[in-house]
Amino acid sequence: MDAPLPGERGTLWLVPNALDHGVDGAASLDLTLPRGAIERAATLNHWVVEDAKSARAFLKRVHALHPLAQPLQSLDLREMPRPPKDGRTPASDEAWRALLAPALQGHDIGLLSEAGLPAVADPGNALVTQAHALGLRVVPLPGPSAITLALAASGLQGQSFAFVGYLPTDAAARTARVRSLEALSRRERQTQIAIETPYRNAALMAALVEALHPDTRLAVACGVTLPEGWCRMATVARWRQAPPPFESKGLPAVFLWLAA
Amino acid sequence: MDAPLPGERGTLWLVPNALDHGVDGAASLDLTLPRGAIERAATLNHWVVEDAKSARAFLKRVHALHPLAQPLQSLDLREMPRPPKDGRTPASDEAWRALLAPALQGHDIGLLSEAGLPAVADPGNALVTQAHALGLRVVPLPGPSAITLALAASGLQGQSFAFVGYLPTDAAARTARVRSLEALSRRERQTQIAIETPYRNAALMAALVEALHPDTRLAVACGVTLPEGWCRMATVARWRQAPPPFESKGLPAVFLWLAA
Repeated sequence: MDAPLPGERGTLWLVPNALDHGVDGAASLDLTLPRGAIERAATLNHWVVEDAKSARAFLKRVHALHPLAQPLQSLDLREMPRPPKDGRTPASDEAWRALLAPALQGHDIGLLSEAGLPAVADPGNALVTQAHALGLRVVPLPGPSAITLALAASGLQGQSFAFVGYLPTDAAARTARVRSLEALSRRERQTQIAIETPYRNAALMAALVEALHPDTRLAVACGVTLPEGWCRMATVARWRQAPPPFESKGLPAVFLWLAA
Repeated sequence: MDAPLPGERGTLWLVPNALDHGVDGAASLDLTLPRGAIERAATLNHWVVEDAKSARAFLKRVHALHPLAQPLQSLDLREMPRPPKDGRTPASDEAWRALLAPALQGHDIGLLSEAGLPAVADPGNALVTQAHALGLRVVPLPGPSAITLALAASGLQGQSFAFVGYLPTDAAARTARVRSLEALSRRERQTQIAIETPYRNAALMAALVEALHPDTRLAVACGVTLPEGWCRMATVARWRQAPPPFESKGLPAVFLWLAA
């Protein structure tokens, strides 16, 4: 079914993943992914992925619901270049473009992250950029994004919001950043959204509760889509009286605030 | 199955809708919604919805995949207060809270928009705010959001982005707003995301292409999740040579830009 017609070019499918990466006891994928995305994923033989091991785990979960078109062992799985650290040069446009070679030969390609939508709060947008430069068709398959699910559950302003990624880990820089984002939130009536590495959740919450104005409304969504997940929103003044119950284990959390 | 235990309080479930509102020929819901969300929706007897007619259409689509726990006619469907126009007073906290009365009696409630996730680029966040004030459990069910799907498909910066809703319709005010957001995009390396009423898509695109710097990258995602949907990204300079093929019919579109 993947035999290309002469001259035909493949599509880049953006395949969603569940939001339970790193969590014990993965549930059936169809609790969080639509049948349409699962069945499309089962047809794809060429993949560009954030991490090959987690991609194989994802494909096994797909196979449990819909048989893969080819055995897992024979799939073409390529890992994306890692984001550069310590000032090293990022991967070149050519390196990204090389990952799209199967599409130029007419094969569809799937792009997959370890969790959620690829290229949203995650690597992959450099690949999508090259796909557009090559004139390939790019199709996003619907699936869960912790950012918008947390926003919906927060009760905060959903008509204007900004996702700012990770905040600085240095305490003084983090406080300055939080206050600057609070001022922006007040000026634009815009909800500000940040994420944190799970083991730092409690530290970030403490920093937010200390840096933000008592009247600012602050929400935390922890373990979105997981059975043990929860979301609460209150003023900073109220959070100061009762900090949230982060487990030592640490589920992924999303932090959202809106100035009064 | 909805008989509450004494003293128990219901959960507010945020139920996703498909992204095909106003489009002819609705496809099966499970192409875009997970089984988990569809099955949960089928159990709910109390609903707060953006529009009762479209909510009934949604529930019929749910029923086609999973039988509703109660006949559609006997469900308790309440419409949210409309956003106020012409300077009229918005609905009071008490009016919103009254919609949550079934939860205080132990019944679960579903919150539903005409398209996508409730309370994201859509009304409903006032209801969620009151649910938190009452200490109710709020659970977002995963489903499609045109904003994050468009962002994934754009290839633009996905680690920092802002959704700004609708732009002004007045030409001069719109140009000023677009340039101010482009400056913000340059300063923060942040993708800016706006939506438009379908019949104004071509006008907004023309305004963006005129107001933005030639090197700014601009993406359009039209009809996200629909079979006729498409997404393209290019520099403004390139868009000036070849405007996008908006159909006269008008699918919903998302516009995204990132300054160079």
